[in-house]
Amino acid sequence: MDRLPKCGANYVPLTPLTFLKRAANVYSNRKSIIHGRVSFTWQQTYERCCRLASSLKSLDIVKNNVVSVLAPNIPAMYEMHFAVPMAGEVLNTINTRLDARNIATILNHSEAKVFFVDYQYVPLARDALRLLMTSNNIITLMPLVVVIDDIANPTGIRLGKLEYEHLVARGDPRYVPEEITDEWDPIALNYTSGTTSEPKGVVYSHRGAYLSTLSLILGWGMKTEPVYLWSLPMFHCNGWTFTWGVAARGGTNVCIRDTTAAEIYGSIASHKVTHMCCAPIVFNILLEADRRPLTTPVEILTGGAPPPAALLEKIESLGFHVVHAYGLTEATGPALVCEWQKKWDHLARGDQSRLKARQGISILTLADVDVKDPRTMESVTRDGKTMGEIVLRGSSIMKGYLKDANATSKAFHEKGWFMTGDVGVVHPDGYIEIKDRSKDVIISGGENISSVEVEAILYRHSAIVEAAVVAMPHPKWGESPCAFVTLRKTPAAVNEAEIIQHCRRNLPGFMVPKKVEFMEELPKTPTGKIQKFQLRALAILRRCRFI
Amino acid sequence: MDRLPKCGANYVPLTPLTFLKRAANVYSNRKSIIHGRVSFTWQQTYERCCRLASSLKSLDIVKNNVVSVLAPNIPAMYEMHFAVPMAGEVLNTINTRLDARNIATILNHSEAKVFFVDYQYVPLARDALRLLMTSNNIITLMPLVVVIDDIANPTGIRLGKLEYEHLVARGDPRYVPEEITDEWDPIALNYTSGTTSEPKGVVYSHRGAYLSTLSLILGWGMKTEPVYLWSLPMFHCNGWTFTWGVAARGGTNVCIRDTTAAEIYGSIASHKVTHMCCAPIVFNILLEADRRPLTTPVEILTGGAPPPAALLEKIESLGFHVVHAYGLTEATGPALVCEWQKKWDHLARGDQSRLKARQGISILTLADVDVKDPRTMESVTRDGKTMGEIVLRGSSIMKGYLKDANATSKAFHEKGWFMTGDVGVVHPDGYIEIKDRSKDVIISGGENISSVEVEAILYRHSAIVEAAVVAMPHPKWGESPCAFVTLRKTPAAVNEAEIIQHCRRNLPGFMVPKKVEFMEELPKTPTGKIQKFQLRALAILRRCRFI
Repeated sequence: MDRLPKCGANYVPLTPLTFLKRAANVYSNRKSIIHGRVSFTWQQTYERCCRLASSLKSLDIVKNNVVSVLAPNIPAMYEMHFAVPMAGEVLNTINTRLDARNIATILNHSEAKVFFVDYQYVPLARDALRLLMTSNNIITLMPLVVVIDDIANPTGIRLGKLEYEHLVARGDPRYVPEEITDEWDPIALNYTSGTTSEPKGVVYSHRGAYLSTLSLILGWGMKTEPVYLWSLPMFHCNGWTFTWGVAARGGTNVCIRDTTAAEIYGSIASHKVTHMCCAPIVFNILLEADRRPLTTPVEILTGGAPPPAALLEKIESLGFHVVHAYGLTEATGPALVCEWQKKWDHLARGDQSRLKARQGISILTLADVDVKDPRTMESVTRDGKTMGEIVLRGSSIMKGYLKDANATSKAFHEKGWFMTGDVGVVHPDGYIEIKDRSKDVIISGGENISSVEVEAILYRHSAIVEAAVVAMPHPKWGESPCAFVTLRKTPAAVNEAEIIQHCRRNLPGFMVPKKVEFMEELPKTPTGKIQKFQLRALAILRRCRFI
Repeated sequence: MDRLPKCGANYVPLTPLTFLKRAANVYSNRKSIIHGRVSFTWQQTYERCCRLASSLKSLDIVKNNVVSVLAPNIPAMYEMHFAVPMAGEVLNTINTRLDARNIATILNHSEAKVFFVDYQYVPLARDALRLLMTSNNIITLMPLVVVIDDIANPTGIRLGKLEYEHLVARGDPRYVPEEITDEWDPIALNYTSGTTSEPKGVVYSHRGAYLSTLSLILGWGMKTEPVYLWSLPMFHCNGWTFTWGVAARGGTNVCIRDTTAAEIYGSIASHKVTHMCCAPIVFNILLEADRRPLTTPVEILTGGAPPPAALLEKIESLGFHVVHAYGLTEATGPALVCEWQKKWDHLARGDQSRLKARQGISILTLADVDVKDPRTMESVTRDGKTMGEIVLRGSSIMKGYLKDANATSKAFHEKGWFMTGDVGVVHPDGYIEIKDRSKDVIISGGENISSVEVEAILYRHSAIVEAAVVAMPHPKWGESPCAFVTLRKTPAAVNEAEIIQHCRRNLPGFMVPKKVEFMEELPKTPTGKIQKFQLRALAILRRCRFI
């Protein structure tokens, strides 16, 4: 049995690139991409990717070089998810909400050889490149810049000589993609958003990307021929792997430049969208806009932050059907999905939303997920109360952090676990619920308080739009919860006492915020995540007033 | 990028064993198995598998030893799909329709160390062991026998001392499964049915079994919480991987001893079956029995032989919904699935059945499928007419044939393809249709005639139950088609001229059988496949009468 060797027929390295080739074969005339007036078929997308890959190969770069891109959800951004690895290179999608300094840091750290820039981001890219030049002083390290002009209405905006459609046009449609000989080879590089530390460069392998893609299709139950709306930026973990996943399912990518209510509702109506992903914050956009009634239900996969149960109820009442996932860049996007159980079908709406607001169970290709005491690495009791750190193990976990052996070895526990840094509990039914980032847990009089739990109660108050709870120093208890909230314009304003009263009705005493601060806006990372470290600093400063 | 090494957290060997562990964690109290009055939860199934695996380990056998089993679709058969590899051993399920000589050959060839036998098959197993003993003369090579008594109503039938439930009872529920350190390690050994040659031992790896399982769930679109009826023998390619797949989806296995209409309709009604697999021959069983109306649709995945379009129409009119797959033992079961396309929704029933009778497109984890001229290895034109050999490539293809380097190297083309020996065409939409086994193609006056195509026309005749068409020597054309048919008892008998007339109305002249032979029964393999080589011999013998 051991003498049966691997050969080209029975051992083919796993890579999401096979999804595109298969789509071109068996879904050849089906629409692959729709973007305004522009659309392509899978056969055309494959050919365009071959052309771009062959042009990239001619740019004097070698295997595993990094190709960066700064662009919204346009067709070029989608194509690059295949074309760049088809040329043997590594795709680095950059968050368009970063500033020039961040972008220069990423270009420098990744040693990007080519830098694709959407025409709208040319001023930002120019600033980043200037910063890179002055910090480097070595001309040869500057990436080659390629502008992606608007595909339907070219503007002529350039930054250097190269333009995306020119590269496509001059490429070879019969290009034979670089063979992936080792599925452990890198396919993508994604920088973390840095809620808790400096951005780190997370490297995905072909194997990891492939298995994550299959997992997530299965976890969400995405059937064939989805019409997938790109409301989630592709620069977030490669669109939670759905860049590759839509090809795997022979679906249609509806690409939109901006995540506005008008674009979303318009696309749903025009293209009969069936699926979309977004952070819970987008629910607010959808709820507060002029709504168009949905004629058929739209499946939403949400994640990035725990969606308050109340918000879930509201969005579902519009005809959206939400599945909740939890993940992180290091896990190639979602790692847990709150899989629906048939026996929940007959529960009351509120109970359903509470069950759904939990983070759920491991996706199929994760070998194991657990919640452990990080000191002993013992599993916590499955009582829905005992907190521990969520740990993951499996082939969808990143290869590691680029050029950061220290952070990599800290993230991987020697017993074979990836430490998420998130604190959670396991319910008796095996579903995991996140209680907090480990840095955000508030320890008051020896009791652990989950800031997320207090926030969930705050969100149930009709006047509150956003809420964040952090630890504030307390002379007696060590720490106590301090809430920062932003309020709806209408109804009439609410005061601190009323909010504290609302919490008191819904929480044990020790969890009730001792202080509520009203803000116009909460401080956020470029990806829209609340920066609690800033709020903690604020809480310390305000403390004098409190005691 | 290359300096990011694999570790226990980010590189976990792929194995279907993770599906059971996950099911025990997240579906712990959900029903895993129902068999008559007996039922288990996933937590219990996991514990029983741990117990059995630990008992197996204590039987003085070592890693990669073969454990054979001769049993119908009972709980033990299901559990062994996990317990045997959890002990580091290789599962060999034996077709219960084989005779003692075949079984002895398999036990000898596989060097089975343990042989599990369902109590009903004890006489057959005893005969096989006697043959093995006389052929061997070496006592140490005889496998240890374990009888699987009826779990609900123990009979006391034994063959030696060991009994399945005793092994389970004395095992350790806290057994830690043998760690799979290399996903290329063998997990199962399945002997081919031998339609064209001697049975060969096909070896699957953990990796191949894992990827095939995911593929088939995706290809069939099997959602979570299926209630899966075991109408397909688990000894066929490990139940087309659904032994592992039902665990992956947290489903319920409805185990039945016999594939009778009463058992099938009874189980559907009692347990709300949602999914089942079977060969098209089972459609006849379902159609000819006293039917009970289906209250909810039941999904059927069918394969093993091309289902005639007319038969598809009939079975779907009962409320079954059929998906058609094509595969072979060497591909870990189904390799192509006739994926439904939305644009077919509005076609006429007959057109739908014709589209569905095609074998379809590659499952997702196959890297590539093609139809090629086996001499030049050039792809055939996608015109639905040009025939070639179906070739496959990907990680769901077997490791090779056990102790048969010659057959293994013949099956794997040096250019990295597995040669199926099946002849097919590619339609313009990329869907593959099988025309024949390469040995069954009839070459008449230089024209290739697909015996399957002629058979499809014969099946459309209301008097015909089964039909097989083979080549008969012909003085002018080299070969000509000869049909063998069995007839329905009612309506009244039909004669040769009428059948030839029916073919003439529906086929080009050169494809019309020159001879029709009526038989009481067609010769078949133990798995129910028609043995055309016998019919070819018959055709040669009858030839004298014809010319």
